[in-house]
Amino acid sequence: MKTLIIVAHPDVKGSMSQQFFLSGLEQEKEVTIHQVYDSYPEGKIDKGKEIERVLSHDRIIFQFPLYWYSAPSLLKEWQDVVLSEIASNDSYMTRVAGKEFGIVVSIGSKETSYQAGGSVGLSLSELMKPYQAMATYFGLDFMPIFANYQFMYQTEQAKKQVLVDYQYYVTGPKLKTLASRTKWLRERVRGSQTLDANLLAPLLTQLEENCETIEDLNQTLADM
Amino acid sequence: MKTLIIVAHPDVKGSMSQQFFLSGLEQEKEVTIHQVYDSYPEGKIDKGKEIERVLSHDRIIFQFPLYWYSAPSLLKEWQDVVLSEIASNDSYMTRVAGKEFGIVVSIGSKETSYQAGGSVGLSLSELMKPYQAMATYFGLDFMPIFANYQFMYQTEQAKKQVLVDYQYYVTGPKLKTLASRTKWLRERVRGSQTLDANLLAPLLTQLEENCETIEDLNQTLADM
Repeated sequence: MKTLIIVAHPDVKGSMSQQFFLSGLEQEKEVTIHQVYDSYPEGKIDKGKEIERVLSHDRIIFQFPLYWYSAPSLLKEWQDVVLSEIASNDSYMTRVAGKEFGIVVSIGSKETSYQAGGSVGLSLSELMKPYQAMATYFGLDFMPIFANYQFMYQTEQAKKQVLVDYQYYVTGPKLKTLASRTKWLRERVRGSQTLDANLLAPLLTQLEENCETIEDLNQTLADM
Repeated sequence: MKTLIIVAHPDVKGSMSQQFFLSGLEQEKEVTIHQVYDSYPEGKIDKGKEIERVLSHDRIIFQFPLYWYSAPSLLKEWQDVVLSEIASNDSYMTRVAGKEFGIVVSIGSKETSYQAGGSVGLSLSELMKPYQAMATYFGLDFMPIFANYQFMYQTEQAKKQVLVDYQYYVTGPKLKTLASRTKWLRERVRGSQTLDANLLAPLLTQLEENCETIEDLNQTLADM
């Protein structure tokens, strides 16, 4: 599965959270990272190139910091130019339908603001409705939104967990079960050039055994 | 009351609905029409000028065609540049709070698409949540959204009604009662250079009488 990450951040190099996320993808061969602000400093989107990018990947991810409850403007320009072209062409529409679509959003304020009674008063799911409508229009398979609140204030341990979750979001199967995560982790450990697989082997075996135990329990519950 | 209409349409001259709306405001002295795509063909917003515009008006209206369930990208760029500057300045924040904020949106597809079970599956109010959150952030008084679906397919009579409603939305009191509309209409007829007030006088008198009758009935109902 090939993933296209369309990153819309006016200053990626100055963003600690963006740098952190991208550091987790350096070894990924099936992932294309596309920085729209770097590619189009004058804001003129090349629609031909962009459509080719979209068509040649299976999962499309919009990755951005939340600016006024939406993506920075250049991602909207990308939508205005690229999506309109796709929508006007039946062949493109057919090829786009069924692709997976995700959102990775970094948020400066705290999670509790994004609920009824919070300072924003609206949930992130509510604010992302225009993207949901877009996914519906093109027949995309909308993944649960990957939101990261107040990256700067997280502990190192929490950040590491975020990074693994992010790697899974970008490269793992959409359906997130314990079994799918275990399989994903095993494949990544085996394929890694930098990790010592021998050291991790006992941990992986343990994880798989736990996984089987839980599946057996689930089966027993289902039988009862 | 001074109204600023920020129009974000990449081709205002080619848009029949935009031309139609704007034709209804030619005599309005308290209304400023600001075409962002004309003002900033290169997309570089002058934040100083924009903040002055915002601060010197009482009602701010975003007027745009719906592109991918949101405004065209240059309005988002305007938000990214101008709102961020306002948010970083306490004095600006104080002066902006309490202003009225409206949205005039033209929609190409039919109204029934914008509901559960429709092809979009989401209402316009849901799609406009990012603007609602913006209004909350700045303490703006959010007006009911003025939506115009499929302008091209409307009858001439319906279009005329839309135009009067639009004029009221831009220049009338936010609270839309029969009394406030009658007062608004009277003032506009009296102030008009082109209408023959003598001809309209009997109609206005009739309207006022009807209005008083309804108010009397309301009072009677309240007393009962």
